[in-house]
Parts: sequence; structure tokens; C-alpha cells
Amino acid sequence: MKLNFIIYKDSPHKIYLQLYDSIKNMIETGEALPNEKLPSIRQIAIKFDINTLTVLKTYDLLEKNNYIYKLSGKGCFVKEKNKLISSTQKPVINNFAIMNKDINFASATPDADLYPVEIFQEIINDIFNNYGGKAFNYFNTQGLLELRETISEKLKNNYIYTSPNNIQIVAGSQQALDLIKKIILKRKTTTMVAANPTYYGAINTFSEIAKMISVPLEKDGINMEELEKILQKNKVDFIYTMVNFESPTGISWSMEKKKKILEFSEKYNFTIIEDDCLSPLYYYNNITTPLKAMDKKNKVIYINSFSKLIMPGIRLGYMIVPNNLISDIIAAKFSADISSSGLFQMALHLFLKKGYLEPNIEKLKKAFKEKYELTLSLLQEIKEIELPYIPQGGLYIWIKLPKGLNSNIFYNILKERQVSILPDSVFYMNDEQENNHIRLSFAAVTKEEITRGIEIIKKSLEEFSQKKDFLFKEDFISILIR
Amino acid sequence: MKLNFIIYKDSPHKIYLQLYDSIKNMIETGEALPNEKLPSIRQIAIKFDINTLTVLKTYDLLEKNNYIYKLSGKGCFVKEKNKLISSTQKPVINNFAIMNKDINFASATPDADLYPVEIFQEIINDIFNNYGGKAFNYFNTQGLLELRETISEKLKNNYIYTSPNNIQIVAGSQQALDLIKKIILKRKTTTMVAANPTYYGAINTFSEIAKMISVPLEKDGINMEELEKILQKNKVDFIYTMVNFESPTGISWSMEKKKKILEFSEKYNFTIIEDDCLSPLYYYNNITTPLKAMDKKNKVIYINSFSKLIMPGIRLGYMIVPNNLISDIIAAKFSADISSSGLFQMALHLFLKKGYLEPNIEKLKKAFKEKYELTLSLLQEIKEIELPYIPQGGLYIWIKLPKGLNSNIFYNILKERQVSILPDSVFYMNDEQENNHIRLSFAAVTKEEITRGIEIIKKSLEEFSQKKDFLFKEDFISILIR
Repeated sequence: MKLNFIIYKDSPHKIYLQLYDSIKNMIETGEALPNEKLPSIRQIAIKFDINTLTVLKTYDLLEKNNYIYKLSGKGCFVKEKNKLISSTQKPVINNFAIMNKDINFASATPDADLYPVEIFQEIINDIFNNYGGKAFNYFNTQGLLELRETISEKLKNNYIYTSPNNIQIVAGSQQALDLIKKIILKRKTTTMVAANPTYYGAINTFSEIAKMISVPLEKDGINMEELEKILQKNKVDFIYTMVNFESPTGISWSMEKKKKILEFSEKYNFTIIEDDCLSPLYYYNNITTPLKAMDKKNKVIYINSFSKLIMPGIRLGYMIVPNNLISDIIAAKFSADISSSGLFQMALHLFLKKGYLEPNIEKLKKAFKEKYELTLSLLQEIKEIELPYIPQGGLYIWIKLPKGLNSNIFYNILKERQVSILPDSVFYMNDEQENNHIRLSFAAVTKEEITRGIEIIKKSLEEFSQKKDFLFKEDFISILIR
Repeated sequence: MKLNFIIYKDSPHKIYLQLYDSIKNMIETGEALPNEKLPSIRQIAIKFDINTLTVLKTYDLLEKNNYIYKLSGKGCFVKEKNKLISSTQKPVINNFAIMNKDINFASATPDADLYPVEIFQEIINDIFNNYGGKAFNYFNTQGLLELRETISEKLKNNYIYTSPNNIQIVAGSQQALDLIKKIILKRKTTTMVAANPTYYGAINTFSEIAKMISVPLEKDGINMEELEKILQKNKVDFIYTMVNFESPTGISWSMEKKKKILEFSEKYNFTIIEDDCLSPLYYYNNITTPLKAMDKKNKVIYINSFSKLIMPGIRLGYMIVPNNLISDIIAAKFSADISSSGLFQMALHLFLKKGYLEPNIEKLKKAFKEKYELTLSLLQEIKEIELPYIPQGGLYIWIKLPKGLNSNIFYNILKERQVSILPDSVFYMNDEQENNHIRLSFAAVTKEEITRGIEIIKKSLEEFSQKKDFLFKEDFISILIR
């Protein structure tokens, strides 16, 4: 455990409390992992040049408040309460500590080696040389006009026709959801429908302020009969969807269901929130029309991001917003962070304008397709699991675990073995689920890691089928490390 | 008027409605200014290669819906409803259209010539060369640890002792307010106290979700007797403050009042939100201790930003958050935008670490002090106005207009004369005010512009004192341009 904090001896705060606050925060924020060993009292005393009795006082308080546990003769360890998850707990997504050493099947972010950094370095230097300080001023809250024009022009290739005046530049798709939340906040009551399971960012964002109703998901999209029943019984205001390579299942909706939901949006007068970050990532010439391309009556708020198609670090995406909502969205963006970085907006504009996006997507698709096929073939060899959907693109594979294996417990087991996945509990809106699916993404891992990681998954599943009763115990981990 | 939009003839949307949407949005978003002349029907028809009857249909609809007005023989003009403000209206801050040609006393952002762009270009290239794609990944939601450590170290110079674990990196101070709003949202009810007038960003952010109570402001801070009465009658949860060079008045609190509010925070158990973006900008060795430096009981959430001390385009600031709130703030940041730009965080870390901030602040102070003294001396020559406070630093001067001159009307008049200021109405929490103050900032303007701009203000005030009845009319502007 690396102690990255400072103890101020000249501070009015007592030293043992400074030490307590710092270690407690490392545990709460995930910098210190469950069951990680803490430095010895003597080590800390030497490092910070403080009395061992002071450190002892800190450790006693940490133990008393359930942050650490002591094993006689072995030392002190971080308690798992915030990090490992019980079989019934709904984990909070930003509490997952993905360590660098882990094989990371949880992240859906492309490997950094695939980012077009040389191109961006050149473009950014051009901007520095030509615009200087102007690139570092506040920019228009709605977003750089030239960038919105370029996006509007590019969207024609996807049969989406929109004016730059209906485009809002955002700091990635999570901010787009957050801006919609801000406009919902102004309403008296809001009812929202979403598939179950669905993207956890949407659940976390909207469940605080809207009545959420879930619709079961099928191979070709949500169940339309169930949806219509809900629409007849409730005044639904918004439906959140991802119709192409949906997270977490990888499902793509049929054209028939896409048409149907647009029909419903008119008939029952609701707005569709379409999250469309992955539709260009098809691997077999399958059709991935977004709803927005068929949206003749302007019922769709469309969200897209460059995090997965270029790189997350430029923190840019965009929304297409119908006329009746655009002023509110601009006001929400102002109150969120005034405006997005001008330098990155200018750089993205030039990147798109010069035609760098299309070859970049081709490069990504080539790399992803290879990893997709490898992942799929390795998973298909594991007899303990089922793959209910075989996506033809995107970044996710949804895995059904053998009966009786709780996905949170399996998450804990893999975590201990330095493999990160996401358990289905983060994607469900309610607790009535069986919790025996996991989401595996092949975006961030290398082919070598895929092979090694799936081998660990396979072995763990074999272990499970051999000695079920042992793995059922929730305190599996603490037994394991003793 | 520049028509920066596209008409798609192959779109399913009718052309006259596309044109309508685009012009309407230019008006609503402030790209088209009130009383600006629209292109003639023939000009539009030629530009977009469409029928004149189509354009006529659009203009008729725009007129019907009160976006434009026609003057026979002169053409069509943008109606002022969204841009110019009536004497009783509370204007929304992001609706102010500051045009490039304006003399901008409204903005508090330093002139772009003062930004340390060469240093940042060098640092950013170093990061590209040494870290490549890694700088463009998602970063820790709380913020780059090295940056938090450097900030924690620098803060010791201001007698603020904090662990990096209590620091949250944000995209500027507006985002810090927004994150606090998110944690307030989770409470049942919240009561917040702030000075009247106060920073509009705080009013806009918090008034939606908290009961806001205002306290009168005096030369040396808010009225403490009034505050204590409020605290006795209400369970107050938060007090929003800016104790050094407060916006909009430029007031700095006395040490006595600073101590008093900290005492109250313990006695009445509330949290202080301290917005401290300007305290280093003192011009005469006056003391500008932040509350946080005296905060022994951790009752202060401290907010600071690099927008005014370096440049706004890096979109970075930070908060110091007490232990009991830090986990909630990190979760709020995650749901706002996952994390701030890694490249900019790394660049800021190196900028601070290499000691570039201190000379940059000295450079800014020298430039600001000259402009401050010029502004003050020119304003003091105008006999129609009063300056109730003479700040000894910061970026704002608060001006009391002559009796009977409404600040919104004066805003409109100056706007027409291409001078931007902010009327007091944006800084008040309620409508009971007299509305005869304006805020003038000298941050963004040159010395030449200050001289020219204040001359225009002076002449306009002289005009007012000569023919009062004429200027009283709210439709002053439309008379003026006919």
C-alpha cells in the first residue's frame, strides 16, 4: 500500500486524526483495496517521523470504526465492506477499483495504443501556433459553431438531418444524461421507461428524480406488448434506449421494433432518449440504423460520444435536441460547467473536417473484430455458461452463469484472481433479479489478456461446479486469504 | 446576420420549417441580436436556392410567433423579447449576448493576451512525447493524485492544511457548485443562506432545490445580527460565501466577521461553501485570508478555480471537501462527467510543480492593478454615479446609478452602444430590490477600451439627466433605431 498523503505537523489538526482521515479516505475512495495489508505501525512511524503510539491510536480507531481488521501475527488489513459486494447488495459503479495489474474485462474503453495521439499532437500544435490564447478562452455554451456544423454535415452519411442549432456539445455521453436530468428536475413529476437490464449510467442518473419503469428485454429489443401496456397505464415522459449493441447485453433491435417505438412516441407522446455510442462498430455488414435517422416527428433526443470512437480523454460528445428542449439544454450545460474545452473542440473539429474519423473507426473495427472473435470462441468452449445473445458488433458479451452462482460472488472471486468483470446487479433497476449474469467487454484488453483472463474464468467455473457449497459462502474471500 | 445553417432538401422535414427552426434558434440562443435586420426574402431564396414563397411562409410564422417584427419598406427585424430585458424582468445570465465588437465590462475573464500559452504548449508537448495515449484515457474521478498532492502542498502557503484525499478536481468553480447541488438533491429539504446581492451562478444553481434566505451585505461582510436571527429561526444547512473581493460588489469581509461566521457554523451546525477564486488578486498588500485557513472544525467546503489565475480554457478547479461529504462529492462528479481531462490535469500539475503559477499571478496583478486604478479614477469623475465600496483588489466595481435609472434599461442602452455591463438584477435573489446598480469588470478589456467605454457610460448618464422622461420608456431601443 502506497501512502500518498502528507502529515502536517504544524497543522492544528491532531496527527493521529490526520492519519486516520487519510487512511479512511484511501479505503472509501478505493485507493486501498479490500484485504490489502497496511504498513506496520513501525513503518508508518518511520515514514512520517512520528511516534508509534500515535500510529497505534489511529489503527485502533480504524479498527473500531470497521475500516480495518487485525490478524494476530500477520498485521492489519483493509476490511472489504466498501469494495467486495455481498450477494444481495447493489454495487455502485464508481466503487469498483480496477487496478492496473488486473485483466480488465469491465472497461469498455479502447486500449490506449489505438488512440490517434500523433494526429492530435499535430493538430493541437497547429491550434497553439495559429490561435494562441484564444483557444483557452470560454467558448460558446452550446459548443463551437464550426464543430456543430461539421458534425451536422457528417451525420448526413447516417441519414440524420439536423441543424447545427439543434446540436449541443457535451463532455461525453454521461454529461448528456446529466443535462437531461437537469431539465427533468424542473418538471413536477416524470416517468421514464427503460429496458431491464440497461446502462448503469442511465439508471444512476435518472432513478433519483424520475419514476422508473422497466420493460423486459428480448433478443430483438424490448417487449413491445409489455411496453404498450405500460404506456396505456402511465403517462410516460421519456424512454431511454440504446438500440444498437446495447449495454450490457450487446443486443440490437429489429427494424420492426425500431419503427414501433417511434410510432408509440407519437401515439403516446413521449420523448425517446437514444444513446448511440456504438452503432458504427458492426463487424459483419449488419444494419445499424439509429432511431434518429427514422425520426420524422422530432421525438428523439440523440446522444453520441467520441470516447469510444476516438479516445475518452478529449471528453467530448454531442446531443441532437428537438427545438422545444434546446434552450433548456443550453441553460443546463451553462449551469453544469459553462462550456467544454475550446482547445479540444477546435481539435475535434479539425480531426473530423480532415477526414481522420472514418479511417480511425476502420482501424478500431479491425482490432475489435479480432478480439471479439477470439473472446467468443474461447467462451463457447466453457460448458458451464450460456451466451443468450450473440452480438454482431459492439464491445459487450453477456454471459449467463451456472445456476446457483451469484454474479456478485463471482465478481469477488475473479477480483481476487485479478480479473475484472461487471456483475449484472449494476444493470438492473430493481432487486427481483436472479443475478446470475456478467458483462464482459473485450475493448480494453489485449488478445493475450483475453486468453489468460478467460482461462481464469473457466478454471473458477470448474472449481464452482466441483465444490458448490464452499463457494456459496459470502465470506469466501476472507476464508481464502487466511 | 450570418446564416450559418444548412437546409437539407432531401430531408423529410419541410423546408420552410427547417428555415423557421434555424432562425428561431439563432434568436433564442443569442446568435441573432435583437433589432438585427434579417436578410431579405429574395437574399435567402438565392442563398439556399429555394422558392421565395417558402421563405415568405417562414417569415410569416416567425412574425406570428413573435420572433421578428416587420417595418414596412425597411424589412424584418429580430424582436427583443429574449435579449433586451424589461425593467422588471430577471435576466438569465447565459442569455446575454456579448458580441466581439462590444467593449466587454461584463466578463471577468482575463484578456487572452495574458494567458501563459507558450508554457502550456511546451508542457503539453512533453506530455504527448512521454505519455502518448495514456494521457487520453479516463482518469480517476476524484482527480489525478499527483495534481491533488501538488495543490495540497501549495495550499500550505495560504495556511490551508488538507490531505489530497479531501481534494476533488472539478471543471471550474461552476461545476463545484453543481456537484454540491447534486448532494443537496439527495436530502429531503435544504435551507441555504447567501448575501444579497451575490454571485449569479450560486443563485441559479441552488435556488431550484433549496430554500434560499438572503442576508443584507455591508461594507465589511454580511450583517451578522441579521444572520444570527435567521439561524435562530431556521435550520440552516449551508451558507454560500465569497469573503474576498466578492462578486458583484468587490467587498472583502473583516477578520472579525470571518471569525464570527466560523463560530456560528459550529454553534448552529451548518456547512460554509467558500468560493475563493480571487483572493490572491490584492493590489495593496491587504490581508485576504480565506475562511478555510481558519477552519479548525472542518465546516468549510472550499472552492477554487484556475480560470482567472491561469486561463479558463483548461477548465480546471478544485474543492476541499470535509470527510463526511467527500464520498458523495466523488459520486456526484462521476455522474456529472466521469472525470476531468487527463491531459489538462497533467499539464496543470507540471505548471504548478515547476513554479509557474506564482509569477503568473504577479503578472496578472500588475496588469489588473493598472486597469483597476484607471477604471476607478475615470468612474470617480462621473458625478451622476456613486461607488458604495472601493475594493482593494479583485476584478469588480459596483456602481450605483442615479435615482430613477433602472439598471436593466441602462443595460439595454449601453448594449445598443456596444458596451456590455451586468445589471444588478442578475445578482439578487428576490425582486424587491431597487435595481439601480451595475457591475463593471475591468478584467477582459484593454486600457484603451476602458477609457472609451467609460466615456460612453458617462455620456449616456449625462443624456439621462438631461431628458429623463424619454429614457424612462421601456421601448427606448425600438424608438432609437427607427
